[in-house]
Amino acid sequence: MVPVFQIKTVVVIGSGNVAWHLTQALHKAGKEILQVCSPRREHAGILAEKVGAATAMRCEKVVANADFYLLAVPDGKIEEVAGHLPDVKGMVCHTSGITPAVVLERFERYGVFYPLQTFSKGKPVELQEVPFCLEASSPAGYSALETVAAALSRRVYSVTTEKRMKLHLAAVLVNNFTNHLFAQAEGFLEQNGLEREMLMPLMRETVEKLKALPASEAQTGPARRGDRATLRKHLEMLHAHPDLKAVYQLFSEQILKKYYE
Amino acid sequence: MVPVFQIKTVVVIGSGNVAWHLTQALHKAGKEILQVCSPRREHAGILAEKVGAATAMRCEKVVANADFYLLAVPDGKIEEVAGHLPDVKGMVCHTSGITPAVVLERFERYGVFYPLQTFSKGKPVELQEVPFCLEASSPAGYSALETVAAALSRRVYSVTTEKRMKLHLAAVLVNNFTNHLFAQAEGFLEQNGLEREMLMPLMRETVEKLKALPASEAQTGPARRGDRATLRKHLEMLHAHPDLKAVYQLFSEQILKKYYE
Repeated sequence: MVPVFQIKTVVVIGSGNVAWHLTQALHKAGKEILQVCSPRREHAGILAEKVGAATAMRCEKVVANADFYLLAVPDGKIEEVAGHLPDVKGMVCHTSGITPAVVLERFERYGVFYPLQTFSKGKPVELQEVPFCLEASSPAGYSALETVAAALSRRVYSVTTEKRMKLHLAAVLVNNFTNHLFAQAEGFLEQNGLEREMLMPLMRETVEKLKALPASEAQTGPARRGDRATLRKHLEMLHAHPDLKAVYQLFSEQILKKYYE
Repeated sequence: MVPVFQIKTVVVIGSGNVAWHLTQALHKAGKEILQVCSPRREHAGILAEKVGAATAMRCEKVVANADFYLLAVPDGKIEEVAGHLPDVKGMVCHTSGITPAVVLERFERYGVFYPLQTFSKGKPVELQEVPFCLEASSPAGYSALETVAAALSRRVYSVTTEKRMKLHLAAVLVNNFTNHLFAQAEGFLEQNGLEREMLMPLMRETVEKLKALPASEAQTGPARRGDRATLRKHLEMLHAHPDLKAVYQLFSEQILKKYYE
């Protein structure tokens, strides 16, 4: 039985990091990319050339007959961009963690195609392992979306807007905030004439361990041991680093509270 | 020319995670482990058997003729344990990031043998990649220690007590605090009926990216974009999670300050 709705042709709106990776992956998975639309003509051109697509500068100009319109634009631009699209019959999806699906409800078919990963243009990503969180305005739409996602990744989930927003928040913690910790640690080492490379094996092992253990069981360190002498020494060492000291204080208090109260 | 001082025979004091990994690695590297000394008889017995060593329950009872005494005991126990050791001629080293070398100065040869890594018994560690930070009371001692460390790892560094303490502090940030962030994120997902596994690829990529970029350049997320609408939404979502909210607030403020002030 042929499904009611299938996705074979794609228009991509956006030319940033997410568009960069998803467009090329869709192309490799056999989808026909009709256009890449972005006001950043140069970015759009490079991406379009890679996947044999045309370009469009403005959303009003995209072709109306594609099966799938992927809005890979910043969260704050989704509604505006959607407002400028023609009344297409294909499925319109955004890729945002925090934006409700219903901002696209003026379209006949709409949904969300959210990859739970961080993307940079210069860095290839193993998409097969990336969780895709999907939402769709109809079962037929969901089914078509699922087929597309399953061609890119082996981890495809049906996730409501509410849960997706929670995943996105958790992603900020483990990605953006972890990175901020790393940046602070690197800065601290640099200021003290030590190489950042010395911390890399430890950073890797910190994550590796979580394959075997939940993080709450993997917790170690002075606060976990209740070693207040070390906590005091560290806080003294941070007297000239107020931001780092604030982080140190807050985390140590929370870990002490968690394991000793 | 034969060096003045060489390390061939080893007594290990301690039977915890660090002792567990280092003792077996030293054994594999051809060192003769004479004894494993620990009041935890069962732990010591298992480790000793693995490396063909004898056991001792108390430090007073260790043999006095080993070349190397490795004190892999908790930071707070080092001075006490060292106080109970006989007056040995071999080199006495602790494995602590935060303890000065000079707490061992009553010995003829002493130093520090600090692996910058997190160890758990159940989890094998690629020691070859682990930075070993060494300190010794004499050049001959350092040279002997360096030979031992180089047999275990390709990353061997001469590090003063002051710099080692700074590395240790940075290690707390990237390992213990990152783990606390992960634990909070996992808890938040669990409370919302979402699987922790969904975050694993993102956690891995967060660290992988740092091979290519320093963390301060890899920073992304709502605070980095100055996206205050998302920050507000996230803080609202955290109203029932005060610890997580405090972390979210502090980190977002610091990232905003760093990139926008």
